[in-house]
Amino acid sequence: MSAFITDADIDEIAVGAAVLGTGGGGDPHVGSLMAKRLIRLHGPVRLLAVEELTDDDFVVPVGGIGAPSVSVERIMAESELTAALEAIERAVGRKPTAVMPIEVGGGNSMIPIAAAALAGLPVVDGDAMGRAFPEAQMVTFHLAGYGPGATVLVDHFGNEVVSRPVNGEWSERLARAAVVEMGGGATMIDYAYGGDVVRECAIPGTLTLAKRIGSILRGRSATGDELRDDERIDALCDDLGAYRLFDGKVSDLQREVDGGFTRGAAELDGVGGDRGATFRLDFQNEMLLARRDGQIAAVTPDLIAVLDLATGMPITTDDVRYGARVTVIGIPCDDRWRTPMGLATAGPDHFGYDVDWVPVEQFATQKEGR
Amino acid sequence: MSAFITDADIDEIAVGAAVLGTGGGGDPHVGSLMAKRLIRLHGPVRLLAVEELTDDDFVVPVGGIGAPSVSVERIMAESELTAALEAIERAVGRKPTAVMPIEVGGGNSMIPIAAAALAGLPVVDGDAMGRAFPEAQMVTFHLAGYGPGATVLVDHFGNEVVSRPVNGEWSERLARAAVVEMGGGATMIDYAYGGDVVRECAIPGTLTLAKRIGSILRGRSATGDELRDDERIDALCDDLGAYRLFDGKVSDLQREVDGGFTRGAAELDGVGGDRGATFRLDFQNEMLLARRDGQIAAVTPDLIAVLDLATGMPITTDDVRYGARVTVIGIPCDDRWRTPMGLATAGPDHFGYDVDWVPVEQFATQKEGR
Repeated sequence: MSAFITDADIDEIAVGAAVLGTGGGGDPHVGSLMAKRLIRLHGPVRLLAVEELTDDDFVVPVGGIGAPSVSVERIMAESELTAALEAIERAVGRKPTAVMPIEVGGGNSMIPIAAAALAGLPVVDGDAMGRAFPEAQMVTFHLAGYGPGATVLVDHFGNEVVSRPVNGEWSERLARAAVVEMGGGATMIDYAYGGDVVRECAIPGTLTLAKRIGSILRGRSATGDELRDDERIDALCDDLGAYRLFDGKVSDLQREVDGGFTRGAAELDGVGGDRGATFRLDFQNEMLLARRDGQIAAVTPDLIAVLDLATGMPITTDDVRYGARVTVIGIPCDDRWRTPMGLATAGPDHFGYDVDWVPVEQFATQKEGR
Repeated sequence: MSAFITDADIDEIAVGAAVLGTGGGGDPHVGSLMAKRLIRLHGPVRLLAVEELTDDDFVVPVGGIGAPSVSVERIMAESELTAALEAIERAVGRKPTAVMPIEVGGGNSMIPIAAAALAGLPVVDGDAMGRAFPEAQMVTFHLAGYGPGATVLVDHFGNEVVSRPVNGEWSERLARAAVVEMGGGATMIDYAYGGDVVRECAIPGTLTLAKRIGSILRGRSATGDELRDDERIDALCDDLGAYRLFDGKVSDLQREVDGGFTRGAAELDGVGGDRGATFRLDFQNEMLLARRDGQIAAVTPDLIAVLDLATGMPITTDDVRYGARVTVIGIPCDDRWRTPMGLATAGPDHFGYDVDWVPVEQFATQKEGR
């Protein structure tokens, strides 16, 4: 990727972002329409490497919060982005110099690009999760001890809420309560910090990563070779150091919007080499727990992604359909999530799963042992 | 009352405020302790008549929001008052010059006096309800077409939320959702306006009214004569143009805290002249509907107050007890509540009571007809 994001880059970033999660921004293909339109209108968006940020920068993470099912249905209003940027400037008394994805997964990869195009600002090539997570405090800023600061919510009714929660957990509680009232989705800014803090906390290069993932799944290898449909998933796993956990067909699915989240579970019957085995995926906005024949295959904070078995295209939490033939892959998370603080923040316990965390790498060992 | 409120005035105001409702501030006797202490510490609070306000004044209504049952249990932290005043100044960029009760009923009469003492500001002798109502948009500002403006919530955890809701109904929805998360009670500032708007909207003289009510119920008539215990309620009704609706004993009581409100109903069996009749009171923070033998005796927005039959002391929603012997009185509300907009905002329909509004004056006619 050049130092600019053009409208031609958007589709590849969106595919990669859908692999990295769903997030409060919903399906990235919905946000991608707005991002492309605003880039065509205002010109390409400069991509700023994390290490290029100076102490004078004021970096504003902009994204959607709410149930992905709702985010998809919301009309993405540009006025919400403008209102959110104005509100944070008013609240903090500092003019944003760059926009950043709070999470690179899902539509929250697209919203910052759209906001950057609209405001004539660069977008930071990095994020605060390295994937998508469902709750506001699940960010590297929180792991490093930084609070959410002035936190902005704006909705499409025109309401604006600026809170100063005492910590990340309170930010999540207050924002989620407001978002439920706002109809289940809103635009949010939190963890707006100077360049020094962002250099310390951001996971660098994740928009570029999303584009590389999208590129591979759309048939071009990292070295530029064309990939056949059936080569793409394995090529992606090689590139990411990821694991192909299961090939199967969705045999049962529960999903509901509840308290500002999309929650549910999917059951899979194995196909191909996995015939005879079963697989279960539990999700809360993100795929959080994957079990093969009752044994843990991957669990949060490691990333679990669902891909179309035939085309390799990612399927977000909200798009999993009964009868779909899919491949589930497991991607090791950033090391910061594997610390005691990382696991306490986004590990299985936090989500109420009574299982111990095991690194997804263990799955390879198990598989070899079978 | 002189142009200052001293600690000696507080108890009489608190008794009167408890007649005028409960409100989000809970029992005024809890708030009165804080008000007295802060007056002793910082000196008497200047009482400013509504007509004394100039266009340069910036008047800040401060109060509690939440279920009265919770407000009573909360430790009233002075730091919350300071934080709220600082937050509105930061949000609006205007320094408060006076504090005002948003509602004169209940503890929200005391909180502004305490805040005024703490901040060295005068308190306005007026409010935006003329009583207490349970929802944030039930204010004369709303009836006159003014929105809530920058709206501050602070809690005892240290969280601060400043919203700019599009209208009064949204203010209520967003604040209530936040307050439930905050544990059921918080300090709120809304409808902070310049002196010009407050002169237009405030119901004047209501702190003085509360003190006069308290004075009568504590045994001193408006003309300074001493009143026997059994003369006080009738003296109050004479003074206010109010109606003695029922004397009875509480024979059944349901009450629960639900969604940031205290809701419930009380059934009464008649005593004395009302022996043989029954009476029912429905409440949501305030007494909202009073029925005698199934016939409406008084209904919101007219004020329904419950007094101890023997002493005349007011009993707030939260303090009604099984077996208590009480007198229920009905007080005509300010005429602004009897307009179509007033009745749409705080009439029986809004609270889900399937009854037509009838002025409490009608009760007298019915009674004479019996």
